[in-house]
Amino acid sequence: MGRIRVVIYGVGAIGRMVARTICEKREEFEIVGAIDLDERKVGRDLGVLADLGREIGVKVSAEPDRVLKETTPDIAIIMTTSFLNKVFPQIMTCVKFGVNVISTCEELAYPYIVNKELSRKMDEAAKAKGVRILGTGINPGFLMDVLPLFLTTLCIDVNAIEVTRVIDASKRREPFQRKIGVGLSVDDFRRSIEQGKITGHVGLVQSIALIADALQWSLDKIEVKKPAPVVAPSRIDRGYIPVPAGFVAGLEQKACGIVGGETKISLTFRASLIEDEDYDRIRIDGTPPINLEIKPCVHGDQGTVGVIINLIPTVLSSKPGLLTMIDLLRLHHCKA
Amino acid sequence: MGRIRVVIYGVGAIGRMVARTICEKREEFEIVGAIDLDERKVGRDLGVLADLGREIGVKVSAEPDRVLKETTPDIAIIMTTSFLNKVFPQIMTCVKFGVNVISTCEELAYPYIVNKELSRKMDEAAKAKGVRILGTGINPGFLMDVLPLFLTTLCIDVNAIEVTRVIDASKRREPFQRKIGVGLSVDDFRRSIEQGKITGHVGLVQSIALIADALQWSLDKIEVKKPAPVVAPSRIDRGYIPVPAGFVAGLEQKACGIVGGETKISLTFRASLIEDEDYDRIRIDGTPPINLEIKPCVHGDQGTVGVIINLIPTVLSSKPGLLTMIDLLRLHHCKA
Repeated sequence: MGRIRVVIYGVGAIGRMVARTICEKREEFEIVGAIDLDERKVGRDLGVLADLGREIGVKVSAEPDRVLKETTPDIAIIMTTSFLNKVFPQIMTCVKFGVNVISTCEELAYPYIVNKELSRKMDEAAKAKGVRILGTGINPGFLMDVLPLFLTTLCIDVNAIEVTRVIDASKRREPFQRKIGVGLSVDDFRRSIEQGKITGHVGLVQSIALIADALQWSLDKIEVKKPAPVVAPSRIDRGYIPVPAGFVAGLEQKACGIVGGETKISLTFRASLIEDEDYDRIRIDGTPPINLEIKPCVHGDQGTVGVIINLIPTVLSSKPGLLTMIDLLRLHHCKA
Repeated sequence: MGRIRVVIYGVGAIGRMVARTICEKREEFEIVGAIDLDERKVGRDLGVLADLGREIGVKVSAEPDRVLKETTPDIAIIMTTSFLNKVFPQIMTCVKFGVNVISTCEELAYPYIVNKELSRKMDEAAKAKGVRILGTGINPGFLMDVLPLFLTTLCIDVNAIEVTRVIDASKRREPFQRKIGVGLSVDDFRRSIEQGKITGHVGLVQSIALIADALQWSLDKIEVKKPAPVVAPSRIDRGYIPVPAGFVAGLEQKACGIVGGETKISLTFRASLIEDEDYDRIRIDGTPPINLEIKPCVHGDQGTVGVIINLIPTVLSSKPGLLTMIDLLRLHHCKA
């Protein structure tokens, strides 16, 4: 059997990490193409862009159709956007050329609640071409949904699930720090939220929908609170951006899933420069109860790259169509 | 679709918990038969034995053939022994009647390293009859093998895995306390170990083999240390059996998997009456590193019942043959 042929679709920070990891550590995969529209990247060798210190003979191209047709890949890893409507045409292009898709697009982790029509189109196109489409990553896709679901395998019954992810943002990339509003005044933060310039973490809704789906819980609704600023009590110089006292050091987001009038799923995501400790915490109120902590919290970029690469063979051996992590890992057995 | 028809094969403590749970909480299953050789149970109603406070119309029978033939079950849950050679004939009887098997038999969690010939026979018989055989439970089958494997989905690379399970045995049943030597003198404990009267926890070998298999690590060998006594520093009255100072309060067992001359998998199991805190701890030395703690440790009996019941539908929808948890949950994607 030959190596699995991979196209890197989106040569941002995660795309470059995926490329570097495959080239350095994963002989079972071969990168055959790279796509990005950024003029500073087009025409350059992916190995050089990914800090491999050598060329790998794959030039970044701004022409998806040509790359997908000429390089005959098994799978494209799309790492371009958090939003379904933006990733949709990219996915459809891959499917048109019979190429499987795995994507970090957060909304794709459970696309049905974002846009049923686009989901249906993707599913039909994938089935017609015999390929699979999966949205995944560390979050959504693993820590706040799939891992708690996996743990419910131990439970005779499950009453409620609570997940908290707290990230010390000083350990993360500058774009991540900007994404969570670091350095803004509280007013500017609120304005940026209103204007959609700061989205914070995208995916709490997807995580709740994934959990409810696998546990066969019928959701009354998903409540999502607006991201709240985490305000610096004194000046902070731990990140890429200095934060004066009273300015924003990060954010906290909460969402919950209501079932039969009760809050059954509670998710909290917090990322800032003032976290004394960071962790992932899962509490399952059930029989037996489960209280789990991962400390420090799993590194987001590394974990995303791990999930994406490790799941490629599983995606390729699954039944065609639009998949979620529940289909992929057979988590349907988890019952309330 | 009708309910899944289940036979309870072995009406011990776990068998009764499974029966009670199914009757009280799981409408998708129906208990159609019960098998046990114990004269005190034969002829009695399973509902009464399982403390349901009512009869369920299922009498315990000492005739496996008759029950398996007459009740036409989909699956038998065998909870009779820790050892492969003892469960083997029971499994073969189920398979003969076209009945799927899920069993708590610890050695069945990875039977190939115990007895290849018996494993081959079970696999062939199951395939010929189109049924599945799975050995699982909380340990082996989940906490010390499957859960760490599942977590490696996050890892770009994995260098080593360390798992520790520490149980406060005062919270467990009397048979469990006896199984770990509570109340014996140190000499009697050592003699009981030599004579095979105390086996302690069975399954560390299976857990190591499961991890190595899924990660495609080629084991040089599995090293298993003899169970060591945990000695009471002063008199203990926390359990079913009083323990004088200097006597045995429980045991500790260690095993490791050696790959390329290095210890890559280290497992420690400790259960005694003198644990200040009990927990499950998983440490993955990899990228990213993962340090996880479940505190208190997951309750063994409840967790086993959960795993067994929750996995029934997954077993029934898997390909026929002798399965391990790796096949069942598609954990093969986990790569080193």
